[in-house]
Amino acid sequence: MGISSKKAVVLLSGGLDSATVLAYARKKGYHCHCLLFDYGQRHDRELKAARLIAAKSGCPFTVMKIGLPWGGSSLLDKGAAITSGISRVARHLPATYVPGRNTIFLSFALSLAETIGASVIFIGANAVDYSGYPDCRPVYYTAWKQLIKSLGLKIVVEAPLLHLSKGGIIRLGIKLGVPYGLTWSCYNGGVRPCGVCDSCRFRAKGFSEAGVNDPAA
Amino acid sequence: MGISSKKAVVLLSGGLDSATVLAYARKKGYHCHCLLFDYGQRHDRELKAARLIAAKSGCPFTVMKIGLPWGGSSLLDKGAAITSGISRVARHLPATYVPGRNTIFLSFALSLAETIGASVIFIGANAVDYSGYPDCRPVYYTAWKQLIKSLGLKIVVEAPLLHLSKGGIIRLGIKLGVPYGLTWSCYNGGVRPCGVCDSCRFRAKGFSEAGVNDPAA
Repeated sequence: MGISSKKAVVLLSGGLDSATVLAYARKKGYHCHCLLFDYGQRHDRELKAARLIAAKSGCPFTVMKIGLPWGGSSLLDKGAAITSGISRVARHLPATYVPGRNTIFLSFALSLAETIGASVIFIGANAVDYSGYPDCRPVYYTAWKQLIKSLGLKIVVEAPLLHLSKGGIIRLGIKLGVPYGLTWSCYNGGVRPCGVCDSCRFRAKGFSEAGVNDPAA
Repeated sequence: MGISSKKAVVLLSGGLDSATVLAYARKKGYHCHCLLFDYGQRHDRELKAARLIAAKSGCPFTVMKIGLPWGGSSLLDKGAAITSGISRVARHLPATYVPGRNTIFLSFALSLAETIGASVIFIGANAVDYSGYPDCRPVYYTAWKQLIKSLGLKIVVEAPLLHLSKGGIIRLGIKLGVPYGLTWSCYNGGVRPCGVCDSCRFRAKGFSEAGVNDPAA
């Protein structure tokens, strides 16, 4: 099938941003193929959430298993609760920073998009209410555009939530009918969200700003 | 350890180009960490060669297992001998083209480089005696430079063989003592090289140009 069939690859993490992006892409009329990653994240509850969200959407999905044996992030360490503090790799970043994560995710998405003839890769990156990860910033997505262009491919990376607040994302998602009750944000992989990690705090802020109750709380 | 320790990540395939690059990087004084990929290549003999070359060098190495379930290349199909013909994904390219391959390899290399504090990623890409893959061309490596810069990282991708002929690569490698007898080039994964695939033909041309016998022939 060619590019005219309006196919898209959607990176789906199980968090609320990417769930919103999936609904957004479907609303735009894209036939979506979701791409999920088992990268050894301590919060594997997140991956379970991604499977549920993909299944509920009815879109095909693929789970890539790609352990990062060199570590470099507290998110890859299922030992002690170390999702606070600074990164061992980059001291100006939080401990949860995973070196190369979005670059790896986007490179697989690019391979899939080219193979199935998709014209867009959707990613839920956000540079407003975020942890400061460099692979969530606008300049990085501009560089991806150039990289794909250098390969002669007509595929674009779209990050429609890049400039929205968490409240704005949730307001958009509520309109689109996103099943937020299925999403998981907490960096700690317990049965209940910890409520104190960056991701829990941004989530609470978002629902508060949007003036709605968190169905997963 | 910091960047000043002169560490490098070397992408090692088992073919003669990357084996030459490893020797080149070591000669330049880099402490090299080799990165190998089991991506479901039909020529898994190549991966075995990469392990032997890495082991002989004494450098640490990591093998990443990253099957690409969406296929898209004859190199991922261990069935019939289909290493000739055109790509199912991009009709102007040979059947052996693997969508996104070098982008995926470089993204993992970037993650590893940042984690261990390496300042250079070496890759054996060549745009002279090659199969026309877009991820082997200079413009693609310029775009990678920008992508890494956009992340605020001081890591460079070096492709020192980019503009050399196959003969030039082998002449360089002979000087550096590359164990070409351990390398494997054939796209078909048999016991002996097929002698007819693109990769076998470039190899034969290279040894002929360099005026030396192929120790693996």
